[in-house]
Amino acid sequence: MLQTFHSLSEPERVAERVKALRVYMAKAKIDAVLVPRSDKHQGEYVPASAERLQWLSGFSGSAGIAVIAKKAAALMIDGRYTVQAAAETDTKVFEVSLLPRGKLADWLAANVGKGGMIGFDPWNHTAGEINRLTAALAPKGIKLKALPKNPIDILWGENRPKPPHNPVIAQPIGFAGRTSADKVSELQARLKSEGQSAVILTLPDSICWLFNIRGSDVAHNPVVLAFAIVPVSGKAELFIAPDRLDSEVRAEVTPVAKLLAPAMLIERVKDLKAKGQRVRLDPESAAYWFEQKLGAKLIARGQDPCIVPKAIKSDAEVIGSRAAHVRDGHAMVRFLAWLDDWASDGTLDEITAVQKLEEFRRDTNMLRDVSFPTISGSGPNGAIVHYRVSDATNRRVKPGELFLIDSGGQYQDGTTDITRTIAVGEPTEDMQRHFTAVLKGHIAVATARFPKGTRGIDLDPFARRALWQIGADFDHGTGHGIGSYLSVHEGPQSISRAGMAPLHPGMLISNEPGYYKVGQYGIRIENVVLVTLPETVDGDREMMAFETLTLAPIDRRLILPEMLEKSERDWLNGYHKHVFETLARNLDLTTRNWLKQATQPV
Amino acid sequence: MLQTFHSLSEPERVAERVKALRVYMAKAKIDAVLVPRSDKHQGEYVPASAERLQWLSGFSGSAGIAVIAKKAAALMIDGRYTVQAAAETDTKVFEVSLLPRGKLADWLAANVGKGGMIGFDPWNHTAGEINRLTAALAPKGIKLKALPKNPIDILWGENRPKPPHNPVIAQPIGFAGRTSADKVSELQARLKSEGQSAVILTLPDSICWLFNIRGSDVAHNPVVLAFAIVPVSGKAELFIAPDRLDSEVRAEVTPVAKLLAPAMLIERVKDLKAKGQRVRLDPESAAYWFEQKLGAKLIARGQDPCIVPKAIKSDAEVIGSRAAHVRDGHAMVRFLAWLDDWASDGTLDEITAVQKLEEFRRDTNMLRDVSFPTISGSGPNGAIVHYRVSDATNRRVKPGELFLIDSGGQYQDGTTDITRTIAVGEPTEDMQRHFTAVLKGHIAVATARFPKGTRGIDLDPFARRALWQIGADFDHGTGHGIGSYLSVHEGPQSISRAGMAPLHPGMLISNEPGYYKVGQYGIRIENVVLVTLPETVDGDREMMAFETLTLAPIDRRLILPEMLEKSERDWLNGYHKHVFETLARNLDLTTRNWLKQATQPV
Repeated sequence: MLQTFHSLSEPERVAERVKALRVYMAKAKIDAVLVPRSDKHQGEYVPASAERLQWLSGFSGSAGIAVIAKKAAALMIDGRYTVQAAAETDTKVFEVSLLPRGKLADWLAANVGKGGMIGFDPWNHTAGEINRLTAALAPKGIKLKALPKNPIDILWGENRPKPPHNPVIAQPIGFAGRTSADKVSELQARLKSEGQSAVILTLPDSICWLFNIRGSDVAHNPVVLAFAIVPVSGKAELFIAPDRLDSEVRAEVTPVAKLLAPAMLIERVKDLKAKGQRVRLDPESAAYWFEQKLGAKLIARGQDPCIVPKAIKSDAEVIGSRAAHVRDGHAMVRFLAWLDDWASDGTLDEITAVQKLEEFRRDTNMLRDVSFPTISGSGPNGAIVHYRVSDATNRRVKPGELFLIDSGGQYQDGTTDITRTIAVGEPTEDMQRHFTAVLKGHIAVATARFPKGTRGIDLDPFARRALWQIGADFDHGTGHGIGSYLSVHEGPQSISRAGMAPLHPGMLISNEPGYYKVGQYGIRIENVVLVTLPETVDGDREMMAFETLTLAPIDRRLILPEMLEKSERDWLNGYHKHVFETLARNLDLTTRNWLKQATQPV
Repeated sequence: MLQTFHSLSEPERVAERVKALRVYMAKAKIDAVLVPRSDKHQGEYVPASAERLQWLSGFSGSAGIAVIAKKAAALMIDGRYTVQAAAETDTKVFEVSLLPRGKLADWLAANVGKGGMIGFDPWNHTAGEINRLTAALAPKGIKLKALPKNPIDILWGENRPKPPHNPVIAQPIGFAGRTSADKVSELQARLKSEGQSAVILTLPDSICWLFNIRGSDVAHNPVVLAFAIVPVSGKAELFIAPDRLDSEVRAEVTPVAKLLAPAMLIERVKDLKAKGQRVRLDPESAAYWFEQKLGAKLIARGQDPCIVPKAIKSDAEVIGSRAAHVRDGHAMVRFLAWLDDWASDGTLDEITAVQKLEEFRRDTNMLRDVSFPTISGSGPNGAIVHYRVSDATNRRVKPGELFLIDSGGQYQDGTTDITRTIAVGEPTEDMQRHFTAVLKGHIAVATARFPKGTRGIDLDPFARRALWQIGADFDHGTGHGIGSYLSVHEGPQSISRAGMAPLHPGMLISNEPGYYKVGQYGIRIENVVLVTLPETVDGDREMMAFETLTLAPIDRRLILPEMLEKSERDWLNGYHKHVFETLARNLDLTTRNWLKQATQPV
């Protein structure tokens, strides 16, 4: 899946709230305020209590920033949100503008005079962000000021939802595969070798991975919003309300981590500073607040040290992911069989499809949550890469159209993410030609072998070559990392134009090339693959390869077999045989028969 | 071609010269001296007068740095020179060590104590280099000092060769395609748009391109070693001894550039400083001396603005390159036919092959120089990527071996660079399998189409995929830019793991995947390709493609046709048909018959 959004906007209140914010600005003697979508943890999802950007602007997208000066205000978003932002906000108050790097500084320079002061909440921006912005504005004589309290929270007042306080659950060792003690001691060895006294962890999925815990503080990502400090030796400290852990979970966590109330974080950071210790902090994910409190001198800038080991799945996580994909495959096959049957009478609509697919996933009795809001796009809606169906956009799939569905499940043993594109009625030759080109790209990635040190950027072109040959391309990455019952988008690896992180055996990554014909149709074929050592060892270099974990047929009606090389046909037929053999035994007879014909060789 | 070296070493004098240098160091009160291979212009070739590293250490490679402390000395080189450096220097005086980034600073920190002072010639290092080194050594309490005179020049004394003073020739507009006035005014428009008062140019090939001049100051690259200052408006200034231009060339240059004696450069840089003008300077190619004289405040750091327009060849340069490649193709075909005939009696040796190929090139009556020293490697010598044959290494090609020859010509209308690998006698199946994999990579690059914005890094994997599938790879880039009767290695484009510069129609680039089996054989197949707009326009995006310019058969005896897809066979047969049709008419009957059979379809 690519990305998504929720929607609870109140555009009619925007003008009034911005006005109130300007009264605050006048009192506080600041000339502009930054209101980003991000919270203290910089995740893709934030709890209701941190939906400040939406409260102020109405905009509900997963990324963006509002900037309010005395006379002007802008809502800066990226390309996928152009339409949605304009629809959700009050465009008389906010100009909506695309946000490339540097744009924010330009806007501030133009709308805040020399000597101006810009307020921001030091918890909701990374140190990297604030330091770059400070440097860009310094020559213009404009300064930034960390505000002691978030101005939106002041205005929002009592109506602001309470921060989440849901129970923390344990991720059993059978699923995690490594004890928390083992992970912490590996982390401490790294701190030692790099001469650091401690690391401050601010990313919820890093913390959940490190302590083998999970939660439900935000939608779809089963994380706990917490902070942690891991010293180079001795017990870690986990900042979380202790009453969120029952005695069983507490028994799991307390041997490696002291539980401290969140309010204690300030004290402990002061202690680190007082001791003059060298503290590791990730400038691209940790809040500016930490740099402000510690002072730049004590900070050892470095990537969050959980990111790479978390991405390299343990054997148990790999086994869990395989099981989750078999289970999810059953649900997908039941759904695809149902859809073929139902679509034939011309009444299939996007919302019903979402509900039905979730129903099949729930039928497994193992679904904890969908891993993101399902993207269900028929005809032209399929060409909107980040489409999310609503009552207003819902439409029936007409014969001769394509239907694209991108979805996933959170199971305790693994997270899934799959996209299939289905022909309803008779597809055109143009659809088939592009589908086959996308499939060729998908196969080129799935069958690649590649040496140690290969980065995602080195594989991305394989996904595009067949499309390039027919003058086409797609404007998103080919693949993102995937968590193990954690975030469906996980770093550091990605298969994309920017994917500089080396791949390692044990990493999970999506393989999802696509093609989008605006106003007509969208195509995407997505499987999750595992980086492995190849089965056959030959040649003179150590190679890696991919094992495809996702199990569901790829629509044969959309394939032009003459466009496939023999090796590509072999892969497709082998994949379909494997899908049938793995899934068939647990399917009812009708679905099994459907799967039999859907996986016939081409 | 990949890279190369010359050899005039005197290892027996190394100890004595280092001793003299240490006497100088003691007098000058410095604790270490840097002696890099680079000269004031940072090119791949330097004139004899600037071979300071070789004079001191005996090492004649094209890149490296010696660092001499009071008690220790190191010669730092990259991987391709490990064997050569140890052979050429006195290893009792110099430890030879590989030079990754940061290594130099570590060595200095270990061998120069706190408070130490390191001397360097500000002309022979870039600002980027010196600033990075200064920052790395500051925490150790070690400082760098720009020396007023190069210490090697002091010691070398009267025996030091005179700097080159060869005639400057004009590159006629018929070959250059654009007037110097046009290029200068485009450059001035860019300076204006970026708010810069002037640019200092230090790269010889940039200056030769800008003023449509050529020279013979270094081997193989027909450049003039000079500096230039181009102000945002008005006449440029070219610093070169005026007597090096005859009246005809002077008439060409003086309408756009004032000619000033090299010694005037100092005055003019002082003037720029006095006027407080914002001067553009490339920190990765301009000598530190300029930053020292101007002061960092006045400098606008930016890439040399000639680099990109120089890489995008004019129509005349493209036409010239095509003509040069036809001419060079004739020489290559005569050579390959001769070689097949001669190799059959078992007396072919590497040096004779080099001489014979140059003879065929000279026979065109148009050769100005070879574009680099020919790499001529038989059997195991072919596996040494940067091999250069000498009397000591020369060997005969035995039946059952491969012979690799990488060479090129400098013609006034274009620079060529071609590698062919030839089977002598019966090749093994292992050789054929790897040759065919290399060929598949070569074809994958040659036939690629790719959208606007594509960088070399995005195409590099195509050259490797077939090798990866059989557990193999190669440890050099796939392609480098090529000048137009200029340097055979030219930026900014490259097809490699680091190739971040976008490709543009009109760029020339080599396509040279390879495979090297140490101690056994080397394979490389290199053609020069031109970035073009594709002949057929379809699809919904603007695409680019390659046109292969190099014309010479690829050895069919080394191809396993069953490893080729149909589309790959089609490309090869089409290429061979084109080679025959283009070259046949001007060949003698024997060679023509040889070419006929060498270009038969597979």
